[in-house]
Amino acid sequence: MSGATGGGRLAVVGLGPGPAAQLTAEAAAALAAATDLFGYGPYLARLTLGPDQRAHVSDNREELARARAALALAAEGRQVAVVSGGDPGVFAMAAAVCEAVEAGPEAWRRLDVAVLPGVTAMLAVAARCGAPLGHDFAAISLSDNLKPWPTVERRLGLAAEAGFALALYNPVSRARPWQLGRAFEVLRAVLPPETAVIFGRAAGRPDERISVVPLAEAEARMADMATCVIVGSPATRTVPRGPLPPLVYTPRFAEARA
Amino acid sequence: MSGATGGGRLAVVGLGPGPAAQLTAEAAAALAAATDLFGYGPYLARLTLGPDQRAHVSDNREELARARAALALAAEGRQVAVVSGGDPGVFAMAAAVCEAVEAGPEAWRRLDVAVLPGVTAMLAVAARCGAPLGHDFAAISLSDNLKPWPTVERRLGLAAEAGFALALYNPVSRARPWQLGRAFEVLRAVLPPETAVIFGRAAGRPDERISVVPLAEAEARMADMATCVIVGSPATRTVPRGPLPPLVYTPRFAEARA
Repeated sequence: MSGATGGGRLAVVGLGPGPAAQLTAEAAAALAAATDLFGYGPYLARLTLGPDQRAHVSDNREELARARAALALAAEGRQVAVVSGGDPGVFAMAAAVCEAVEAGPEAWRRLDVAVLPGVTAMLAVAARCGAPLGHDFAAISLSDNLKPWPTVERRLGLAAEAGFALALYNPVSRARPWQLGRAFEVLRAVLPPETAVIFGRAAGRPDERISVVPLAEAEARMADMATCVIVGSPATRTVPRGPLPPLVYTPRFAEARA
Repeated sequence: MSGATGGGRLAVVGLGPGPAAQLTAEAAAALAAATDLFGYGPYLARLTLGPDQRAHVSDNREELARARAALALAAEGRQVAVVSGGDPGVFAMAAAVCEAVEAGPEAWRRLDVAVLPGVTAMLAVAARCGAPLGHDFAAISLSDNLKPWPTVERRLGLAAEAGFALALYNPVSRARPWQLGRAFEVLRAVLPPETAVIFGRAAGRPDERISVVPLAEAEARMADMATCVIVGSPATRTVPRGPLPPLVYTPRFAEARA
């Protein structure tokens, strides 16, 4: 796909949930080939860069500025990687890069831009528990930085009514302390109190913490910024396994109105 | 997590969308360590097995029987891998294994069962187009083998009304020729005619075929069994790039009622 821009390239690379073993081979190759790597500090800190590779660290909130800087460098002919935790297409850098291309100079549309997928947080957390996303599901960001909170509540209500399991991204932050608690209230109005709620933090990493509680007992303080919250559907089942953690799964079949 | 069952293990392994480069390192290691590999023929055919590894091929429709046979062998102390295309937790084998554990002998609950996540089809297809799943989205299986068709229509309608982008799995098969066409009709009643629809077949493989059409022109014949269909939300944007394929993305921000 290289254009007339001196062989520059921009790859938006999914790092997966954290452990190097959950990185894809193509993502690892793109990281190794990059001359310049852009990203949020904690994601870049996971990587070991070579002496000729340059890290461009930026803050979490500066996604669009980061995308612009990365595109400008690729347009100069550099091999640029923009890193994302998980998958870059899910509440992450791929959309920011597309926004920057659309609003940017015409030449950026001819750049070689590739998105390299990864294992997104909800899949990593689901895998540690069984198969809570084994049937229809929705993924919703609880951040009201980029959309009005009433839109979040409306989507939560419709998704629960539809019988989807839910993966909640960006559940809390220092600036957004109450949104997750309010989301549980919205869901409690629609879903049975025993619906399984999974708090999955740092899945697969040494500091992993996974817990499963009924919706009636779910509280915002059980999550932090690194948590992905999965809420089952009314069909989701919990299988006790004695000393082992329970299996939580949503069956492949669904009954009418389930 | 090994129990008192002679060191047997069952790993449910996500192969990713197809190319070996999109496999995670932990999935590759689990495949290499397996004594017995269970799966649908075309998925097992992707692997090169060693002389001491045994393939147990079964048909697409026999997921529960396959799960039971795999669990029985793990209970005998074998190192078993059950393979899934994409991610095993998304409309795939992880839920079938959990169902078999719940309904099976008590000893199966103490088995060492691990689910190893992978890049699921919608993430691979989305990556090839930009970021169509860059904001809230829902994943829905169109198969009415395992749920009543009215449930599918109801979920499609609610998800579109909520403003989700949609990933449609299992869009068509020889036995289910009309469901996708009917799904487009349901969506056309709610979404603007220019909404982007992506037909993503064999993403990343040599026979990859990705096309983008407006919802008004989307037809069931544009998909086959190996296609994942992504339908944008009203906010999804298409960025023309001259000779290159357009970028399709859903912005990170959403306006009220969008």
